[in-house]
Amino acid sequence: MSDLLHPSTRIPATAADLLQRLRETPPLTHCITNSVVTNFTANVLLALGASPAMVDISGESELFAGIASGLLVNLGTPTPEQRAASREAVAGASAAGTPWVLDPVAIGVLPVRTALAADLVAQRPTAVRGNASEILALAGVGAGGRGVDATDTPDAAADAARTIAQRHGSVVAVSGAIDLFTNGSRVIRISNGDALLTRVTGGGCALGAVMAAFLGAARDTDVDALEATASASLVYTLAAEHAARVADGPGSFAVALLDALGSITPDDIVAEARIEEGTL
Amino acid sequence: MSDLLHPSTRIPATAADLLQRLRETPPLTHCITNSVVTNFTANVLLALGASPAMVDISGESELFAGIASGLLVNLGTPTPEQRAASREAVAGASAAGTPWVLDPVAIGVLPVRTALAADLVAQRPTAVRGNASEILALAGVGAGGRGVDATDTPDAAADAARTIAQRHGSVVAVSGAIDLFTNGSRVIRISNGDALLTRVTGGGCALGAVMAAFLGAARDTDVDALEATASASLVYTLAAEHAARVADGPGSFAVALLDALGSITPDDIVAEARIEEGTL
Amino acid sequence: MSDLLHPSTRIPATAADLLQRLRETPPLTHCITNSVVTNFTANVLLALGASPAMVDISGESELFAGIASGLLVNLGTPTPEQRAASREAVAGASAAGTPWVLDPVAIGVLPVRTALAADLVAQRPTAVRGNASEILALAGVGAGGRGVDATDTPDAAADAARTIAQRHGSVVAVSGAIDLFTNGSRVIRISNGDALLTRVTGGGCALGAVMAAFLGAARDTDVDALEATASASLVYTLAAEHAARVADGPGSFAVALLDALGSITPDDIVAEARIEEGTL
Repeated sequence: MSDLLHPSTRIPATAADLLQRLRETPPLTHCITNSVVTNFTANVLLALGASPAMVDISGESELFAGIASGLLVNLGTPTPEQRAASREAVAGASAAGTPWVLDPVAIGVLPVRTALAADLVAQRPTAVRGNASEILALAGVGAGGRGVDATDTPDAAADAARTIAQRHGSVVAVSGAIDLFTNGSRVIRISNGDALLTRVTGGGCALGAVMAAFLGAARDTDVDALEATASASLVYTLAAEHAARVADGPGSFAVALLDALGSITPDDIVAEARIEEGTL
Repeated sequence: MSDLLHPSTRIPATAADLLQRLRETPPLTHCITNSVVTNFTANVLLALGASPAMVDISGESELFAGIASGLLVNLGTPTPEQRAASREAVAGASAAGTPWVLDPVAIGVLPVRTALAADLVAQRPTAVRGNASEILALAGVGAGGRGVDATDTPDAAADAARTIAQRHGSVVAVSGAIDLFTNGSRVIRISNGDALLTRVTGGGCALGAVMAAFLGAARDTDVDALEATASASLVYTLAAEHAARVADGPGSFAVALLDALGSITPDDIVAEARIEEGTL
Repeated sequence: MSDLLHPSTRIPATAADLLQRLRETPPLTHCITNSVVTNFTANVLLALGASPAMVDISGESELFAGIASGLLVNLGTPTPEQRAASREAVAGASAAGTPWVLDPVAIGVLPVRTALAADLVAQRPTAVRGNASEILALAGVGAGGRGVDATDTPDAAADAARTIAQRHGSVVAVSGAIDLFTNGSRVIRISNGDALLTRVTGGGCALGAVMAAFLGAARDTDVDALEATASASLVYTLAAEHAARVADGPGSFAVALLDALGSITPDDIVAEARIEEGTL
């Protein structure tokens, strides 16, 4: 452990603490997510030590968001049922104070999810997670990408992220080669990770669920939403580095990522974090 | 092979026979299951040697349940379409005599599925599979867990299991560290398995599909539903033990479980079963 | 590389070229597919180097099919929402000239999808992919299989394939131990592949998506739809052979298939193809 690796930030130590808390008391993590990644997302949470629950129908999601530790709303395949369930879940989370993450997958060109994302971000999510194209589109300053691929770098979306953060009181996390996090004033950049994450579907979507789990683990602590969200990303991208070392390609990488999420230790995080913090 | 390992029961020999039958004549196994585990469930059935078919829309499921060898109805993500398809499938199975398994995932707190489970159990499923919290909730004597996690042990649900078995003529299987099975008079306990099954989503849900496949394979034999259901669980939990020996974590365990379901032999089952049988 | 392995056809060289093109400029591949295989399908496309997008709701799919490079419509779990989205996507693809693949999963016995397939095939898909039972049912000359299993061999469906090809102007691909492709006059047979493909759910469904990706990569080239479709199958079945060499069962095979799709080279394809071409 060398503090010299990241002199400006307490995030690695915080991430290590939160990981330990999460494993001791698994946060019940309510996910409304797209049909492509539900399985992987649940497995990521279980591997890490959290307790996933995919409750995504109308009539159940509002109640459940009220008893969950954290909530993810991912707009990847927003059927009418999921749109209704998402609105109900956000209402339930807001009423109960449950922290929640909005992942506005592929907004910009696609009209149904773009309209839904605009409505939901106005409900003041605890955190918003997306790639640069999605964050630009959510801020109203970009046309969005071609689907789930980022066509811009995180720093290109830094202004958009700040705008969203200040307008809605949300932490904004922009994924890319260097991940960027801001609450409107503080900025954190994490350069851990591996390109293989982009070769596995749900590589980004599952991170949104991990953020919801870490926000849940951070409740009743002095860790704020920016720190919890960055901590989630740090643990996840470090596990990806561990996985990449033993992988032969995208298939074995996804398997190894789950193993690594189960085996990564608090000490690994402090030792291997590549992170810096500043102000806007 | 040592009969001394399980002197009181013929289940290991029955399981070995059913596995061989299943592989020779793959039972067409109709699954209506939750969106998180459809892929894993189908892969579990294929690896074992059964023939899965996920027919979960209204207008098709009643007909298909009538031609299938066995049916699973799992309530994990009960959209309106799946609720309609489930009711139709149960009607089709009942009319045709197709054995069927009800898995009342996460009932108790969540109102939509709890109401549906109450309706479906009254249709006299061949078997009911759940964790202790779910079985307690189905019997009306518990509030249910926090989602898919069991918060009670199987033996804590033994009375509830007997109540359901006697009321509805169903075999009741309660999953946990020691799995419990009853038809209301006989009781079987299996202590095979591995804790990694709880770190993979669908570890329990897929077992419900394996039960439906074994019930299908047992048709036109003298094996009853209690024995077929316990046989399914025995094969599945033994494959989990094989997988755990080579796994590095939850990701590689899930992969190895599929491999083990393909490679496990009838002799393995008789040799490695940890099972006992008695009466209530 | 030995041309003697396949003297009658330029498909291996074409497949090698298309694979290189696909990796250099990933085709945006729009998939409307069944809930069992969405994850695996997206991972297959990502591993290969294509860019998947699962846009399967009404109100978005028509627009997206117009901007995608290729489209897959797979009828495996055709909810009302997916049926509407499929019709819209086909309209969008037809209007924009986007090549599209129809996979009529399990038609024949099941009425909802059978009716939908009849409507969609009349919209003149670029390619139709299915097992022999499905192709026979689509041509109106068979009752269909018991679900997704083929109960006939590809050559048993050769006449049906020709009928569909000539009636609708589609390439027809029939999967089996020896895959058959026809545009109504030319016929291609590929004997690469491995039986483990039938032990992994989505082994065939994901191939339909790979065909859509290759059709996308072939736009603005002199490669026709028959050649692009056969090329997709050649690359995919060769990757399956690579995977089978290192697999211990169906679980590790699926993982290794993804790795192999990422590592297979244009040279491998020319060297290892087992393919022949003729006329009807």
